[in-house]
Amino acid sequence: MQLLQQTIQNIQPVDNNMMEKARERIDILSKPPGSLGKLESLAVQLSGITGQLFPKIDRKAIIVCAADHGVCDEGVTSNPQNVTLFQTLNFPKGLTGVCAVAKITNAKIVTVDVGVKEDIPLDAGVMIKKIKYGTDNMAKGPAMSREQAIQSIEVGIEVAMREIRSGADLLGTGEMGIGNTTPSAAILSVLHGCNPCEVTGFGAGVGTGGLAHKVEVIQKAIALNNPKRDDVIDILAKVGGLEIGAMAGVVLAAAANRKPVVIDGFISTIAALIAYELEPQVKDYIIPSHASEEPGAKIAAEMLGVEPMLHMNMRLGEGSGAALAFPILDAACSMMNNMATLEESMMMLEK
Amino acid sequence: MQLLQQTIQNIQPVDNNMMEKARERIDILSKPPGSLGKLESLAVQLSGITGQLFPKIDRKAIIVCAADHGVCDEGVTSNPQNVTLFQTLNFPKGLTGVCAVAKITNAKIVTVDVGVKEDIPLDAGVMIKKIKYGTDNMAKGPAMSREQAIQSIEVGIEVAMREIRSGADLLGTGEMGIGNTTPSAAILSVLHGCNPCEVTGFGAGVGTGGLAHKVEVIQKAIALNNPKRDDVIDILAKVGGLEIGAMAGVVLAAAANRKPVVIDGFISTIAALIAYELEPQVKDYIIPSHASEEPGAKIAAEMLGVEPMLHMNMRLGEGSGAALAFPILDAACSMMNNMATLEESMMMLEK
Repeated sequence: MQLLQQTIQNIQPVDNNMMEKARERIDILSKPPGSLGKLESLAVQLSGITGQLFPKIDRKAIIVCAADHGVCDEGVTSNPQNVTLFQTLNFPKGLTGVCAVAKITNAKIVTVDVGVKEDIPLDAGVMIKKIKYGTDNMAKGPAMSREQAIQSIEVGIEVAMREIRSGADLLGTGEMGIGNTTPSAAILSVLHGCNPCEVTGFGAGVGTGGLAHKVEVIQKAIALNNPKRDDVIDILAKVGGLEIGAMAGVVLAAAANRKPVVIDGFISTIAALIAYELEPQVKDYIIPSHASEEPGAKIAAEMLGVEPMLHMNMRLGEGSGAALAFPILDAACSMMNNMATLEESMMMLEK
Repeated sequence: MQLLQQTIQNIQPVDNNMMEKARERIDILSKPPGSLGKLESLAVQLSGITGQLFPKIDRKAIIVCAADHGVCDEGVTSNPQNVTLFQTLNFPKGLTGVCAVAKITNAKIVTVDVGVKEDIPLDAGVMIKKIKYGTDNMAKGPAMSREQAIQSIEVGIEVAMREIRSGADLLGTGEMGIGNTTPSAAILSVLHGCNPCEVTGFGAGVGTGGLAHKVEVIQKAIALNNPKRDDVIDILAKVGGLEIGAMAGVVLAAAANRKPVVIDGFISTIAALIAYELEPQVKDYIIPSHASEEPGAKIAAEMLGVEPMLHMNMRLGEGSGAALAFPILDAACSMMNNMATLEESMMMLEK
């Protein structure tokens, strides 16, 4: 709890003064004002986050948090649960979707076992921070204890701080956890105060009971556990997931250390919402990536006040969408570092 | 005319057989089927274009076609016309928006003078292919002759073929031409058969007469010149632009040489529509990039049957949006080259 509390206390407002300076410079670059759209607002945001007028991003890391979900016992997904283990072992080997995408910008993939159901070999290249062997079935009781929920957030903080200490300028969130659109939809429906049917989608494939059954399971879990709307840790504990908590921790740590953090799709956005509930100022450190196909993703992005830039019909997770947005941030930095102002251009022409 | 004719004749269908093979492989990669969305369809398209199951993109070039527009005399833009010259000289110096974005993927910028109003110094790093010193004022007569329109397309073909011969695997279209949203809207309204007011926007800034005046000028130009709907070269000549013709040529040359070509925003999409009218098969070689802020861009993309991937509120042109989409194609290639199938992953785990 101490680490979580400390991290939240360390979160400061972004540098408004530097954002104003960035805005001023962008407006005199040799282009019609505003014509680079979101590249401009991203550059301003990066200046606010880093306190630098000419931000640079050298080292990037996607932190992929892996855990299992007891609610899979209810048949909410068509995928066998051991795919979590299988893919967790594949990240360090560079074989998965996010690895392929991350390659295009030399982003490092950091895989963390926050709660995979099986033991991960120590030499697998995975950081072992297992809190428990998967959550408990939230349709029969709380997914985890309050202490474990806090611990999951703190795991994310620890791992993110390690990457930041070793030089990461940019973080991305990713996850692996068969069944994790179910707790994500549950968290969202509690936070948004809506019926789970409005935010529940097919995920990577629903089980034999179909979408209606998945919605029923979520309704049942919420009714049974009665999570408190104004206590997000209570929500995370009762109807959440270990990797979701860890990703919330990554977002908090990024903000506390003035680093930008790119969120991925539905599950990552839910984790960001949890961080936002704990400390609203994290919002200014968050950068959206792609518009996930999951129906809840749009609602979650709106609640967070972010607008995805990539429309790719993707729904893989793993941080694949976050990785795909990294080059956009490179472009925003390049705009600040390489574009000339009208005056500078004229001087160079005169030479 | 011979080069244009020959290029059109050289355009062949994409390799459907290889596309099927690509689809089959993508479906067994270790991810839920379809979960990488447009990265998957892009990879399939690249396989169809290149005939390779594992496509690779090493060398990329954005061809920026520059020309002036006589219709600026009508006060359709708030920007001074000599910005065309100014920016054309800035591209080779790496100072403009597209240069900054292109840097993130090491794309080469090729600047071509197709019809800038002033002479470009021979040592400016610009390819001089000037057809005339800007188009004539289409509100008073045809923008150019039919021969010049054909010549403008052939300039684009020549320049693109030069890049392809020197090893480019991927082309992008870009333009510089103060006032060029006016002819673009004119071409689109003729091709779409709609009132210019439906496809005319603010561009980089409308003149003192405002948007209504810009629409009136376009209406007048169309009424006066009466371009034939079924003769796209007639449309290009009467209400088009030299850089628009050249970009159409780039698209045709890419298709004829089995290379993918990424189109930028509104003006680039209009050029692609011209190429499509000349030979509908070019469509399979075209890759969209960003959703431009110009109102006509959406209509043009729909007519071409492409769906922009990047939603960045950009409206700079120059090829800046095309350059921003290059990393997405890198990611599609990386997916094919680096992701493992389920079976391959299992074999590696057993080792």
